[in-house]
Formats: sequence, C-alpha cells, structure tokens
Amino acid sequence: MVAVGTELLLGQVVDTNSAWLGQRLALAGMDAHFQTRVGDNRDRIAQGVRTALSRSDAVVVCGGLGPTPDDVTREALARVMGVPLVRDDVVLGEIESMFEARGRPMAASNAHQADVPDGARVIRAMRGTAPGLICPVGGQVVYALPGVPHEMTEMAERAVIPDLQARSGRGQVILSRTLRTWGLSESALAEAVASRLAALDEAGGNPTIAFLARGIEGIELRVTAKAADAQAAGALLDAEEGELRALLGPVVFGVDGHSMEDAVGALLVEQHLTLGLAESLTGGLVAARLVGVAGAGNWLRGSIVAYDSVVKKELLGVGEGPVVCEEAATAMAEGARRVLRADMGLGVTGVAGPSRQDGVAVGTVWAALAGPGSAPQTCLMHLPGDRERVRQTATISLLDLLRRRLMKASKDPEVGS
Amino acid sequence: MVAVGTELLLGQVVDTNSAWLGQRLALAGMDAHFQTRVGDNRDRIAQGVRTALSRSDAVVVCGGLGPTPDDVTREALARVMGVPLVRDDVVLGEIESMFEARGRPMAASNAHQADVPDGARVIRAMRGTAPGLICPVGGQVVYALPGVPHEMTEMAERAVIPDLQARSGRGQVILSRTLRTWGLSESALAEAVASRLAALDEAGGNPTIAFLARGIEGIELRVTAKAADAQAAGALLDAEEGELRALLGPVVFGVDGHSMEDAVGALLVEQHLTLGLAESLTGGLVAARLVGVAGAGNWLRGSIVAYDSVVKKELLGVGEGPVVCEEAATAMAEGARRVLRADMGLGVTGVAGPSRQDGVAVGTVWAALAGPGSAPQTCLMHLPGDRERVRQTATISLLDLLRRRLMKASKDPEVGS
Repeated sequence: MVAVGTELLLGQVVDTNSAWLGQRLALAGMDAHFQTRVGDNRDRIAQGVRTALSRSDAVVVCGGLGPTPDDVTREALARVMGVPLVRDDVVLGEIESMFEARGRPMAASNAHQADVPDGARVIRAMRGTAPGLICPVGGQVVYALPGVPHEMTEMAERAVIPDLQARSGRGQVILSRTLRTWGLSESALAEAVASRLAALDEAGGNPTIAFLARGIEGIELRVTAKAADAQAAGALLDAEEGELRALLGPVVFGVDGHSMEDAVGALLVEQHLTLGLAESLTGGLVAARLVGVAGAGNWLRGSIVAYDSVVKKELLGVGEGPVVCEEAATAMAEGARRVLRADMGLGVTGVAGPSRQDGVAVGTVWAALAGPGSAPQTCLMHLPGDRERVRQTATISLLDLLRRRLMKASKDPEVGS
Repeated sequence: MVAVGTELLLGQVVDTNSAWLGQRLALAGMDAHFQTRVGDNRDRIAQGVRTALSRSDAVVVCGGLGPTPDDVTREALARVMGVPLVRDDVVLGEIESMFEARGRPMAASNAHQADVPDGARVIRAMRGTAPGLICPVGGQVVYALPGVPHEMTEMAERAVIPDLQARSGRGQVILSRTLRTWGLSESALAEAVASRLAALDEAGGNPTIAFLARGIEGIELRVTAKAADAQAAGALLDAEEGELRALLGPVVFGVDGHSMEDAVGALLVEQHLTLGLAESLTGGLVAARLVGVAGAGNWLRGSIVAYDSVVKKELLGVGEGPVVCEEAATAMAEGARRVLRADMGLGVTGVAGPSRQDGVAVGTVWAALAGPGSAPQTCLMHLPGDRERVRQTATISLLDLLRRRLMKASKDPEVGS
C-alpha cells in the first residue's frame, strides 16, 4: 500500500485509508507486509511504487487522482509502466455528464482526470469525479484509488478486492461477523465470554474472536472463520453467534451494519408504536440518528429541540424552577408525546458543560420515557468527558434505554399495550 | 520514518505516531519524504530501515522495543548496523530500580530491553521501561523510539529533535495555515487561485498551496511557508492569506479549526440575533451541529424536528397539500420563528430517499430563511448521493446559506435590522 499526499507526511491528516485497507485485505486473507506514505511528488511516488513492487505481488496506491496540479499519481504510474498518458474519451464523457447533471460548468482541469496510462484499465467513479486505475506492470499489478475515504472504500470493495481475489486464485474463504455490544467494559465482556475463548483455543482457533473498542458506540466482538467455502464458513459463524448470544443476552444490540437506532426502529415497527422526542442537551442528535434508519417516517413523529429554557416551559409544559431534574425530564417526555401526538415520548435534559448549571455538575443527565399503559420511567446518568463526549454518550445511552424498554414490553405484552 | 507493528498493517490501530512525528519534524524544518509501516518481523524491519536509509539522511523507527518476544526492533537494528547486541548494565540497573520503585517483581523478559546494538547510544526512558536508541550507520543515523505515544513524543522532543537539529545545522521553521472553503469544486477553486499558484511557482515556491478535499465539509487550501523563524513564516502566511481571500471572498468560511457553524454563531452574536429551526429531512442535524458551538445557548432557541407531515401542519402551520415545496419551507421558517420566539427562522424540507415522495425526486431540498426586516428568502437545491449523503450535504448547505445571509446583513445594516 502506498498512500499519496504531502498532508499525510506533515501529519495534518491521519492516514485512515491505509488502516481501512489493511483491515479489509486481512479479512480477504491477503498479507500486507509494508505500507508507505509519500508526498505529492511525481518522482518520489514512482520511487515508492517501484520499491513496493520489488517486495509485493500487488500494490494499492491511494490519493493524487484529483484535478489540481498537485495530483500527479497518474503521471507517476505512467512512468513506472514506461508508457505515455492517453486521454480516455469515455471517461471524459462521464466526467462531463456528471458536471452537467449537477448543473455546474466543468473546469478544463477536470479533463486531466480522463488521462490514463496507456494499457491501464479504468475503474469507473461512482461517488466522485476521480476514476481509479488497474495498471499491469509485467506480471504484477498496481491499483490506483482516490484519496477521499468514501470514494476509496467503495472502489476498493467493488473493483480491487474482487480483482485481487481472482488473481490470487486461492480457495480458502475467510468470513467475519461482528456482534455489536453496549453496556459492558472490554474486560467485563472478555470475562463474560471467557468460556468460549478457552473452548475455541482448545479446538484449534477456528473461528477466532477479537475485541474492538468503538468508543461511545460500544465494543464489538469480531468472529472470524476460515473454511473451504462461504457456506461452511457461514455455518461456523452461525454456531458461534448462537453461543455468544446465549452468554451475552441483551448486551448484543446488533450484528455487522445493524446499529443501535436500527434496533430501536425494528422494535417500534414490531409493536406498532410511534415516538416523539424532547431534547435539550443532546440538541437534535437523538433525532438525527433515528432519521438515518430507513422507514423512520413510519414511526418517528419528530423532536422538539428545546435548547432555551423558555421553549421547554412554553412548548413542553416544563414547570418553573430548575430544568435539569427528574420532574423536568418527565414533563418533557410527556410534552413530546402530547405535542407530537406520539405513543411514546422520550425526554432528556442535562448539563453538557463546560460549566455547572444551577448547581448541577457537568455530565449529569436526566432522561424520562413516557409510554402507553404505564407510569413514566426515569433514569439518572453521570457521564464523563467534555461537552461533545457527554452529548454523544447521552445520545447512545438514550437509544439503549429505549431499546431495553421496548424489548421488555415485547416479552411482556400487557405492559406495552 | 518507519512505524513497527503488525497491528498497524491490520488496521487495528491507526498510526497516529507517524502523523505526530511528521508534524513535529515539519515544524523543525525537516523534510520527511517517505513514511513506512512494517509488521513485527525482524527481516522486514531491517529491510524497511535499509530502504529508508537509501533515500534519507536520517531514519526514525517507532515501536518494537517492548519486552515481549514479538518486539524485535533491537535485533533488526543490530543487523542493519552489522554488530552484535550487548547487554547494557546501566540500563539493566535502571529497569530493575524502576520495577523496585513500583513494588513489582521484574520479569526476566524485561532484561531484553537492556540489549543494545554495539556502538548505539541509549536514550533513557523517562515514562516507561523501554529505552530509545541512537544508532550510527556510516555517516547516517537511525533513531529507535517506543511505540507507546506518550513515551514516544516525550523521547522525540527530548532527544531526537535536538540531535537532528544539531546534525543538520539548520534553523529553518515551517508553518501552515488552512483556509476552509465551501461552494466551489476543487477544479473551480484551483482556477480561481491560478494566478497565485503561478506567481508563487515563479517566485520559488514559498509559500506553497495544497488542496485538500474534505467531502461535504468543502475543500481546504493549505498554505505552507518556510522561513528562518516563526515570525517570518507567519508574515508569509498572513500575506498569502490576504491574497487568497481577495480572490475567493465569501467562499472562505473559516481558518484552521474554525468550522461553518462557528462562523454562523459568530455572526449571530455580532448581530444580536437568535435563531430557531424547523427541520424535516435533516432531522435534527442542523441543530446538532449548532449546539456544538461554545455559547450556542446565547443565540440558539431550538429546533422543531417535524418528521411527520401532521407535525409540520399542526405545530408549524404548514398548509394542506405537498410538504416538499417552496410554500412549505417558508411556512416552516416562519413557524420556527413564531413557535420558538426567535429573531430568525430557518426551515428545510426535502426528499432524502430512498424513493420519490409525492412525485418529487430524491435529493430535492427546499430551504427558507425568515428574518427580521425583510421577506423570507428561499432556496432550491438538488443534491446527489444516498439518503445519508443528501442529509449531510443539506445540513452544511443550510449553514452556508445562513452564513451568507448574515454576512450580507452585516454589510448592509438596514436589511438586517
């Protein structure tokens, strides 16, 4: 892997692309022995690619494919291949029509993005204007991908990993599945699944289990299985997921791309309930996460972001007096239900910092859930960290509170109906 | 720079050490042309260091100095120097007394940390048990530092940077400044500043200008200047910032860590205005970004996240009929002003996808701004990408709309008052 960009060498940008690619290649069963970063300099990019080719079968270059004069990866690769750059009319047409669709004029410099080293294959751009390249160099191959992360990852998944797998011709399949957990520390989680770690170790270490701390998003358990084909690897993963779920219960909130808000949405759909929010310290973050769920329009009524105390009182019916307390959170939850005409109301108030408010310490958060058929449920949290961290942690804690309440209602129907 | 650690290649840990070192070396006026990452493998570490020595005057290796069997940087460096490892009794004594002071027994493996390539100089450990190394290789030098970030940075500041500066005999300083822009494509931006790129190139390339695409956050122009001292470098940056701002005008929304929402907040404070939001497709994202600004409580009243059409109509006074249109956006902006008792109201409605809504295409967004002293201003956008991307792009577009409106009011006081 060769990451291109002077900003990487200067430490102005941390090279997360190489970390992502390293992880992705490891999952695909490919060894990556070296990663190099090099500045926006044609000669040094060429030198870096040549060194990489001298010690690896294939090289992935990220960055330097944009339209500006400091984007010189195309020139460097043409030099390594010993061929001229030729303008690709199909690519040029695609770039032109992309600008047309957005109603913007195309700058002349964008045409450079259609320059391709003679003999290289183009990877179409789906998310930006920079096409990728597959460059044969003798019996080896160099891939060039854009440096913008969401363009790079899409192109790597679509074109590079499959091409590498085809070239390597290997029969073994490595599959992973991630169980996402919330509420236990890494050491508590490791203790909870200690019996499985020991059993797998004894049985030869297939599948394996790795722990990945995801900050406020919780801790992931990554199960990785090797087998002759995808079906056999999938069966190993299914069996291990069952074992781990039996040990962890509701601590597991989702699998792979399934987020905490997806879990909440699925439970609301299942129970035919709608939700209204009243947010103070989270300032719209709970709503913003929930609207990311496909179909949120079917169960999310809205959110009153009451950042000013007067809004809390006038619109939500919070009484006079302090606004960070159990009574205020309850009034907000009930106000959200009433004003937004929802079945369930979630209210949250707290102190994000930087300083105490009405004598209440930074990190203090009161939440309340008002639902059909039962008295409001409240919850007091003391969250660590700075302003941004308190808000983010409060957001996922509230979603988890909601998830656990809905799971309980789901098991115990007379409570929820 | 050579970073050692299999976890870096696998992407389990992002290599922030190299980013820190790159930044620190740039400040000290040293050019770093390549950075390499390599796994915990003696032969490949030696190979990586040899390659690095073939293209640089000095090499910094981070990581692989711990006490466990996979820590093999010492062996690799002895091999590169062509010398044996010898146990250093002074270092051994220091490690022993460190364990004694902590009341812990020293494991036998810790003694390996006292092994030093013959002829290398030891950098004492102040924050851990791993000493660093200064290894002469012919007329060149290789520094070895521990991989634990707080040990690495302390040792680099204390021993490596001063040694490098003494060897280079240079006093040069490199400073950077980032101008953050929004609204122009990378190529349009390059064209807008083409005269400066040409002038700087002609004058010898100091300062330099680089373009950095930040996805929906816009494009950054990074200006980097070299000079004999920080004051002279700062003066070059000031002059270049002035030239670029004259060419780009309001396209520049901030400098360095100053975000779009910071710019909006500063303008609202300056004009003593409060803001209320009514969000549909952005679902709370605009509010969530604004509450991140310190002091937001002074000007942000709140947001009505009206995800359901009924909420738009009942609470905000949107009329019957389609909810993604100019009239609905205007009614939302006025409703936000009224319900949240704010000076300015921002309303947004649109179709985030995945499918058309009431015959309106995905990516269609209507925004409206209602303020004191003038008729509501509306804006129609067609945004590309999937659901999440449409919402994120709409959010920053709305903040920019607000910023430009406030800038106009600031220049033209009778409009804003």
